[in-house]
Amino acid sequence: MPTTQSRTDLYAEVQQFYARQMQLLDGGAFEAYADTFTEDGEFRHTPGREPARTRAGISTELHEFHRRFDGDPVQRRHWFGMIDLEPQDDGSVRSTVYALVITTRPGGKPDIAPSCVVHDVLVRVDGELLNRSRRVEHDQLP
Amino acid sequence: MPTTQSRTDLYAEVQQFYARQMQLLDGGAFEAYADTFTEDGEFRHTPGREPARTRAGISTELHEFHRRFDGDPVQRRHWFGMIDLEPQDDGSVRSTVYALVITTRPGGKPDIAPSCVVHDVLVRVDGELLNRSRRVEHDQLP
Amino acid sequence: MPTTQSRTDLYAEVQQFYARQMQLLDGGAFEAYADTFTEDGEFRHTPGREPARTRAGISTELHEFHRRFDGDPVQRRHWFGMIDLEPQDDGSVRSTVYALVITTRPGGKPDIAPSCVVHDVLVRVDGELLNRSRRVEHDQLP
Repeated sequence: MPTTQSRTDLYAEVQQFYARQMQLLDGGAFEAYADTFTEDGEFRHTPGREPARTRAGISTELHEFHRRFDGDPVQRRHWFGMIDLEPQDDGSVRSTVYALVITTRPGGKPDIAPSCVVHDVLVRVDGELLNRSRRVEHDQLP
Repeated sequence: MPTTQSRTDLYAEVQQFYARQMQLLDGGAFEAYADTFTEDGEFRHTPGREPARTRAGISTELHEFHRRFDGDPVQRRHWFGMIDLEPQDDGSVRSTVYALVITTRPGGKPDIAPSCVVHDVLVRVDGELLNRSRRVEHDQLP
Repeated sequence: MPTTQSRTDLYAEVQQFYARQMQLLDGGAFEAYADTFTEDGEFRHTPGREPARTRAGISTELHEFHRRFDGDPVQRRHWFGMIDLEPQDDGSVRSTVYALVITTRPGGKPDIAPSCVVHDVLVRVDGELLNRSRRVEHDQLP
């Protein structure tokens, strides 16, 4: 069980990690986003869908998913907030986070689509925080 | 007056506290939410309304308030952000926070309803951070 | 390069700084907002527009900009999030931040207008964190 001090360090580190990770995603840097997962990481962005596995698999999945935006000049911004961290006995950290995807098109007004809850397992590999897994639940889906 | 270090610890702790507290509320765990207040805590969620008092009173108030959502499969998500902490000489902490309530219904798009400013007084009881009081102001109300 | 500890302190301090700074702006305290910049600070809130310079210049620019809201009882709330900090060798800190402006009118529902990315350079002057510059990019603009 970490001390108060290390809980503080962890909290700030996770916020900084999420900020960079999601700015990479919103900037279309899918390989760099995949590199924020462990080598054998799992990423399920849509309920009912098979998770993408391994960095190569996650990157491929993101390229495929984003084809729906081909020719659509949408700017997406992923906001993570209300981060609830639960350090586990094995050294991993469960992170339960609210997420909003804010989308804007040229000349348009921002839209929220959708509101989600993200369930992460974070681990430290060679000193670096990484996602071992990410599972996203969507509020509008049953 | 806390040192820089303890200001950092406090800031992270308050963020973690709010995340868990509001995830409890959004999950319908009203007793657990009430337990994040002191025994004699005060909670006024709507301007002009008498505040709920004591943990039992807060829990009762929440059950009554949420009856309006009976049969309405809405998922509410409380986002707290822009947390401004002012430690007081008596050891309590004034916290002024922006809040958004994001609501989603099955198959629907998220809505913001409403935008608020939350005025908290936080205290530490037996090492644990708790709300002594919470007063919520709504931006759409005069 | 700061240690892990100082990265944590910095992260919490920047969050507290932004909370107070933007609550001042939303409260119409334009002089106090201008004082969160260095004496020679630069602030460009709209792309293509000449930046405001110096505290006096920033304050004047804000008074002019807000004339568009004269007689409009709108309440604006600036949310900053997903803060990515990059400490520089010269002691300054580059901060890349997502921003939403949430607007509410009496009796109305909140609106997001607009979604932005804020590019800050933060410096420490006599122990106090200040903006040396702020450049705001708007998602709806090309």
